[in-house]
Amino acid sequence: MQTTDSPTLELAVDLIRRQSVTPDDAGCQELMMSRLAPLGFTGENLRFGDTDNLWARKGSEGPVLAFAGHTDVVPTGPEKNWSHPPFDPVIRDGYLLGRGAADMKGSLAAFVTACERFVASYPDHRGSIALLITSDEEGPAQHGTVKVVETLEARNEKIDWCLIGEPSSTREVGDVIKNGRRGSLHGYLTVHGVQGHVAYPHLAENPVHLVAPALDALAKEFWDNGNDFFPPTTFQITKLEAGTGSNIIPGECLVHFNFRYCTENTAESLEERVVAILDRHNLKYDLQWHLSGRPFLTDKGALVSASQSAIRTVTGRETELSTSGGTSDGRFIAPTGAQVVELGPINATIHKVDECVKAEDLNTLSEIYEQILIELLA
Amino acid sequence: MQTTDSPTLELAVDLIRRQSVTPDDAGCQELMMSRLAPLGFTGENLRFGDTDNLWARKGSEGPVLAFAGHTDVVPTGPEKNWSHPPFDPVIRDGYLLGRGAADMKGSLAAFVTACERFVASYPDHRGSIALLITSDEEGPAQHGTVKVVETLEARNEKIDWCLIGEPSSTREVGDVIKNGRRGSLHGYLTVHGVQGHVAYPHLAENPVHLVAPALDALAKEFWDNGNDFFPPTTFQITKLEAGTGSNIIPGECLVHFNFRYCTENTAESLEERVVAILDRHNLKYDLQWHLSGRPFLTDKGALVSASQSAIRTVTGRETELSTSGGTSDGRFIAPTGAQVVELGPINATIHKVDECVKAEDLNTLSEIYEQILIELLA
Repeated sequence: MQTTDSPTLELAVDLIRRQSVTPDDAGCQELMMSRLAPLGFTGENLRFGDTDNLWARKGSEGPVLAFAGHTDVVPTGPEKNWSHPPFDPVIRDGYLLGRGAADMKGSLAAFVTACERFVASYPDHRGSIALLITSDEEGPAQHGTVKVVETLEARNEKIDWCLIGEPSSTREVGDVIKNGRRGSLHGYLTVHGVQGHVAYPHLAENPVHLVAPALDALAKEFWDNGNDFFPPTTFQITKLEAGTGSNIIPGECLVHFNFRYCTENTAESLEERVVAILDRHNLKYDLQWHLSGRPFLTDKGALVSASQSAIRTVTGRETELSTSGGTSDGRFIAPTGAQVVELGPINATIHKVDECVKAEDLNTLSEIYEQILIELLA
Repeated sequence: MQTTDSPTLELAVDLIRRQSVTPDDAGCQELMMSRLAPLGFTGENLRFGDTDNLWARKGSEGPVLAFAGHTDVVPTGPEKNWSHPPFDPVIRDGYLLGRGAADMKGSLAAFVTACERFVASYPDHRGSIALLITSDEEGPAQHGTVKVVETLEARNEKIDWCLIGEPSSTREVGDVIKNGRRGSLHGYLTVHGVQGHVAYPHLAENPVHLVAPALDALAKEFWDNGNDFFPPTTFQITKLEAGTGSNIIPGECLVHFNFRYCTENTAESLEERVVAILDRHNLKYDLQWHLSGRPFLTDKGALVSASQSAIRTVTGRETELSTSGGTSDGRFIAPTGAQVVELGPINATIHKVDECVKAEDLNTLSEIYEQILIELLA
């Protein structure tokens, strides 16, 4: 047993000990619920497929502030590469080291201890506090947050403010919060030509020759300028495949591509524009789309203000708003109309060997979460 | 034993019986030599690697007219698809059927019987008659004609006129002869970028985006107009490969391409022009070349005239000169300065199931070869 100098670190250590590799919750949600129930939370285990989800709520009135996160962690890779066993957390040189320390069992522990202190100080707070916890955020994300959100919507249960504990910070805890994410749209294109022998090109039609100017046009297209919250939309070809033999003109050419797009476009507008460019080049093609996530943005408002103010109060820091990086479970929550902000520890070591977080940062984070509760529900 | 109504058909049948799939000669050259030796030919078995080659010559003076060909055949594929066993030749409805009937044991037989009749009529002909026969024309072509030519050149033995028995005819025997072939040049291009996550394109460099305009420029480039003997040079991309995962910007892009080129360009001029186009697009790349065969052309001259005249004498037909199609062993012989013409049976069934040739056409072919001997060496 490590010496832990705070309830937050103690709980984080207990959570990291549970080997909850996606989609296995390994008892983490039960442990959290055992702390929340005494505060007046009612817990529901919403199991979908192989995934455990916890929806815990204290209070029946609005507004609802939900802390959201996940108990699952990514695999450790070969344990011999770790300087300490990844599921036997240790505090060393001021850092808590173990799989999930930063992503995101530290945040889960901070959620719980912040609630404990807040409820102790404000037993008659207004509105409701909730926790939306899944065990498949790191996996296919099909049986987790998306299903919980569907369940809540079906019974008309609404989240007003959602604070996701994803590791948003870069150099110091609270220096960056994410108030949105770009959308991600995949395209799978097959351009059809006519296969043939290279010695007889007049009897064939080379799909690579046909598609080359279209690819160039797509790569050079100006999609938008971004806006105050988002960088410009980007287009990237991720896969290209045509041909087999050395004297054969290919019969078709496969092109996979991905958009990371901002709110100046929609999936529909991008699809239309791609089709227009392809059609302008007179191609015969099939095109399939997969929308991985729409962009979402929480403009300045109560949640962003409360987060910025809480960070300033606890740490003295001014916070940068960012929408960079990949997608998160926020993509499932934001479409319900909830304000969504991601605020968590420093993300430098996530998914890596010797994942760790500054021990003191978890205490700071717990204080920030508590302060947000105060700002919004006291 | 089939009924065969001519020495040419009889010899063709004997040759087809020998299962000489590349590079196995299966005794064909020995059989041919057993017929040539009594005429005064001296034979040399030039074996290189797994390949038997025969250089047979009658006479020591110039000019030298060489008949060139190959004893090897392509595999039969599943024999059950043939209407008759492919190595048990049969004459049916006027057609000789069996693997190699058209490509090119029929021509080999016609070579031999033409020589027999010619030598009987002109025992004191001028110059020399030769046969250059290999057993790897259908394979990698590394130990066959190319090596024989090297051997002859090393001892300063020169071929003036080379008649290759490849099946050049399209509808009637002698309607088309090939007086040249285009060159074939392969390019293997690797364009280097910087791999990265699609969400962070500013940290990567997409080689597909970089190469797309260069591919378009190459595909649209006007290489030349061809000339009286050759169609224009053609460029075809035969293979394209980049990327693996759906959220990864590829690190490199492979492009394979092939030129079929006429004598208005050289391999060197094409290589220079490709490099100039690539460099104009500021690409980081590696580029390897493989020259499969230079183009060759036998302009009007003694051999073309003799071939046209012989076809006219024997069949009454006017002959079309052509340089179309793939490459042939002529690419190895032409660079020595020899005039090279390809003249053989109808090519409709070569490399196919139920390969066959009109029986009468082999007799006609033998007469045409004899007439060419008369025109050039009587």
